Amino acid sequence: MEPLARRNVLKLRGDRVEWIEDVVAAEMPLTVMVGGEELATILCSPIDLEDLVLGFLASEGLVRTMKDVRSISIDEARGVSYVELAHPPALDFRALHRRTYGSCCGRGRAQFYFQSDLKTAKYAVSEVVLTADDVQAIMRVFRQRSMLFKQTGGVHNAALVTKEGILLMRSDIGRHNALDKLYGAWLKQPFALSDKAIAFSGRLSSEVVLKVAKIGVGLIISKSAPTALGLSLAEALNITVVGFARGEEMNVYTHPERIFLPERPSAGRSSQLEIERQR
Amino acid sequence: MEPLARRNVLKLRGDRVEWIEDVVAAEMPLTVMVGGEELATILCSPIDLEDLVLGFLASEGLVRTMKDVRSISIDEARGVSYVELAHPPALDFRALHRRTYGSCCGRGRAQFYFQSDLKTAKYAVSEVVLTADDVQAIMRVFRQRSMLFKQTGGVHNAALVTKEGILLMRSDIGRHNALDKLYGAWLKQPFALSDKAIAFSGRLSSEVVLKVAKIGVGLIISKSAPTALGLSLAEALNITVVGFARGEEMNVYTHPERIFLPERPSAGRSSQLEIERQR
Repeated sequence: MEPLARRNVLKLRGDRVEWIEDVVAAEMPLTVMVGGEELATILCSPIDLEDLVLGFLASEGLVRTMKDVRSISIDEARGVSYVELAHPPALDFRALHRRTYGSCCGRGRAQFYFQSDLKTAKYAVSEVVLTADDVQAIMRVFRQRSMLFKQTGGVHNAALVTKEGILLMRSDIGRHNALDKLYGAWLKQPFALSDKAIAFSGRLSSEVVLKVAKIGVGLIISKSAPTALGLSLAEALNITVVGFARGEEMNVYTHPERIFLPERPSAGRSSQLEIERQR
Repeated sequence: MEPLARRNVLKLRGDRVEWIEDVVAAEMPLTVMVGGEELATILCSPIDLEDLVLGFLASEGLVRTMKDVRSISIDEARGVSYVELAHPPALDFRALHRRTYGSCCGRGRAQFYFQSDLKTAKYAVSEVVLTADDVQAIMRVFRQRSMLFKQTGGVHNAALVTKEGILLMRSDIGRHNALDKLYGAWLKQPFALSDKAIAFSGRLSSEVVLKVAKIGVGLIISKSAPTALGLSLAEALNITVVGFARGEEMNVYTHPERIFLPERPSAGRSSQLEIERQR
């Protein structure tokens, strides 16, 4: 299936009225069957479906490496994915999304919501450090590569990046799906993540921050806004959140020690200290 | 709980670095308990929670009018809502989100996905007709009222509107939640919908179109893009989709007969005919 579809559209512009052929993002339902049982139905863009299923299962805590997957197949026409796990858990699928009360992750500051999160969201161990210029350069390249988004105005993108460029990028109409696809693609050919960041096109909500923690990356950059709960989780999980990264501007919301400031190295040390003082 | 939270943020702008106090959207988990059983946990903005729960239950097909609700209470501190239904269904909650294969809604063009959709998404019976000027005026007022969005860059809005103005409006960090809140608020004080439209800030995906059908409105306007599946469902459910409504521009994707064209009344009839011809 193509990720884009063509539609006849009546375009109004002031007094002008014309029929044009417009491009819109495709959307399909993909049902994930694990060991013959229906786990979930995901509405998604019809590209990189295997990556989506793998990332979704990893995010749910059912898969850690490709060794955990005995087989995976996608029936694209019917919109169904069949997965067999190497070690099928004695699984109550409903429990995955049963809410977990109370705090965790050793800090007492954040609340995780689902049992699957409790199992998989990790305190980030990351050595990544970027300058403001690095962040700008990354977001410039990220925007250029987001061609699908430009064409349809309706697709989110997620990428694993360094200041040298984009290593892996995935797109989807759903913010969460874009991250799951990135996670799944990485699982198939894993590389070290401790010096990588994630560039993202969507809002930085709690679910997005949890997914970044599950993937195991310590820095996320987006042109969009965070939520307060997303920031609380990022604080607790040791993740640097950079929001509203647009042109020369950006807001560093949590763990600013991973962003080196412009005046570095001369005044770098003192301004880093000042950051700590003001937190 | 306040819908906005304040955070200290390190703002970088070119070479300038400063700590500012920024406003971000709050986000909280709300677990919906029905008859003592956990139905779902929704991540949402902490405002109009009762509307959210009612609209969510209506959207799931568990509530049609307020008579179906024996009691509803919200424990905001714990993030839990307790609902007792007047006529508790012999309910398998999992079945609600079990996928339904095949086509329905009497047209064979669209596929619905969940059993709850099958029960609740209606073919729209609507008499609403707007001119392009009406649409522009509505979106102007809608934008002005979307103050929360302006402040935090992270909140979606949904409103029931006529060309005279906004009748009811709700906000949430989640697109779907904003629509559910609107639905719930309307359920508490229902009024005729056959001459109303919905103004919306988010993407017009299949789930959004299904919610509009469930509410029972025949016209949705958004500044954002639709998906192809959203358009297929709108076509089948008799819903007019207007996307990319920005300033003087808008795209009419489905059922354009509800948008009167600028040259009306002189050339109105022939241009309406032309619309039919070109579809």
